[in-house]
Amino acid sequence: MEVTRKNYKDSLNTVYSAIEEADFLAIDGEFSGISDGPNVSALTNGLDTPEERYTKLKKHSMDFLLFQFGLCTFKYDQAKSKYITKPFNFYIFPKPFNRTSPDIKFICQSSSIDFLASQGFDFNKVFCHGIPYLNQDEEAQLREQTEERRNQHANGGGTPSYISPSSSKSPANVPEEHKDFINRVIEKVEALFSNSEKTLDLEPCTGFQRKLIYQTLNWKFPKGLHVETVETEKKERYIQVIKVDEEERKRREQQKLEREQEELNDAVGFSRVIHAISKSGKLVVGHNMLLDVMHTIHQFYCSLPEVHRVLRIVCAFSSQGFS
Amino acid sequence: MEVTRKNYKDSLNTVYSAIEEADFLAIDGEFSGISDGPNVSALTNGLDTPEERYTKLKKHSMDFLLFQFGLCTFKYDQAKSKYITKPFNFYIFPKPFNRTSPDIKFICQSSSIDFLASQGFDFNKVFCHGIPYLNQDEEAQLREQTEERRNQHANGGGTPSYISPSSSKSPANVPEEHKDFINRVIEKVEALFSNSEKTLDLEPCTGFQRKLIYQTLNWKFPKGLHVETVETEKKERYIQVIKVDEEERKRREQQKLEREQEELNDAVGFSRVIHAISKSGKLVVGHNMLLDVMHTIHQFYCSLPEVHRVLRIVCAFSSQGFS
Repeated sequence: MEVTRKNYKDSLNTVYSAIEEADFLAIDGEFSGISDGPNVSALTNGLDTPEERYTKLKKHSMDFLLFQFGLCTFKYDQAKSKYITKPFNFYIFPKPFNRTSPDIKFICQSSSIDFLASQGFDFNKVFCHGIPYLNQDEEAQLREQTEERRNQHANGGGTPSYISPSSSKSPANVPEEHKDFINRVIEKVEALFSNSEKTLDLEPCTGFQRKLIYQTLNWKFPKGLHVETVETEKKERYIQVIKVDEEERKRREQQKLEREQEELNDAVGFSRVIHAISKSGKLVVGHNMLLDVMHTIHQFYCSLPEVHRVLRIVCAFSSQGFS
Repeated sequence: MEVTRKNYKDSLNTVYSAIEEADFLAIDGEFSGISDGPNVSALTNGLDTPEERYTKLKKHSMDFLLFQFGLCTFKYDQAKSKYITKPFNFYIFPKPFNRTSPDIKFICQSSSIDFLASQGFDFNKVFCHGIPYLNQDEEAQLREQTEERRNQHANGGGTPSYISPSSSKSPANVPEEHKDFINRVIEKVEALFSNSEKTLDLEPCTGFQRKLIYQTLNWKFPKGLHVETVETEKKERYIQVIKVDEEERKRREQQKLEREQEELNDAVGFSRVIHAISKSGKLVVGHNMLLDVMHTIHQFYCSLPEVHRVLRIVCAFSSQGFS
């Protein structure tokens, strides 16, 4: 089964179940390159100690991108005396989550790219539809940012997408050149309260102007309003102001929380499959898989540990003939 | 007109003619990324002096790949009072020329790749069918290697694809473990001289064994043979020995020279278009084209010059509103 950004969410439960019921798993990765230092045969010299090999790969391989992850689950069917296999082929790409998310740089090695091209590899699937991912640190940071935004908001009445920490506690400090603009917004919102309309769409404006609007409305109208940033089809951002009673405000609040949670899960993306493999505790096999394991940890989990912490894994691979 | 490795050779004369007859040219490049240092707005700060901008771009942009080169030629038609334009869109990729050619590494920036993906950019065309290129140094080196091989060969009788400098001057130094193998080859070739067959296909063997065969045959049979490495469909290499008179030997020699010359031109690839633009002396215009010009020089021509040598170009761009 081929999994891209398009069908990832719909496939996730199938993947989880396959991992859950498996007796063991097999993995294989494709990378944008192997070595940015010595040539590949020197990098993977069969005479190196596990320690030397790990150190070389860590130094010369981690700036390449693992952009295809193959997973195959194996479950033994007693009745038929054979294995039932479920293969998944994930396309991976670090699509920036939003304007403040890390802009990943990775190296490509032309011989590796040329090899994949000769095997019919579909680069468009990777770059156009690859599933995003976050490592543990990035995920924690994003959750923290989201949490912080929620806490700030809990003090005010709106639902800000852009707000400063002190926004709801004091009147906004509106620069001279924006005072007319903000006063017109206040007039429009006051009119909304006295007419039969439920919704007011303000005109598209800059991020700074939206910040001023949020701060002003939070302070001037702490109740009875839901304020939200909306995007037009042309990607212009404007503010929508909605008259709400307390119940509806809470409902919209809840919806927003759920939407944020979903966006967060989307950003964690493929790393969720790695977490599921890790949590399952199942045996994972592969061919010459040290590089695969290292890339998997590095890209989807955390910085690679010092050599002594992984030597046990390397030796286990070697003794079982997987290295 | 879209130009890839597939139709490059057939399009080259059309491109040359278009450049030749043009009044001026326009160029535009697409890159795998913009900045591996400061963010893009800091990198292209409008307040920088030309010198600062050049230095920043040189430091933080040259490890990305220019992988699409747009060229449009403009010729004014007096009779119709309008410009006739001929647009070409070249897909570029540093496909390794052979096993000893440089294995280029380049950086990709996920925001740039994601932007191109959102615009429907076809990465498969770049990586699977991109036109290769060589800068001046690489081209000179390749021509030198080819020349050296020819000179070595001029002393012997075969047409080696793999030979050591002293090959034809003394008997090959055949290691003990290969002596039986080489003796069997000699017997087969002697048999070829005494039978009516014209061609002898030896069995596939290693590069080292082929080297020993070349050396031995060049020394033992300096005349009357043409020896060449051929590849099976399965990419196995074997040696073909052909009985030839002096005339045929020269003809085959000439064919081989032409083939080598063509392979060399293929390797220089897209750089030939840049040479043609450069030689034409035509005015080249573009939008915000400093980065395009720098990548073009760096990738297809030579290392970027020191800042004082290009300041004149930068200033010329700025004063004409092209920067």
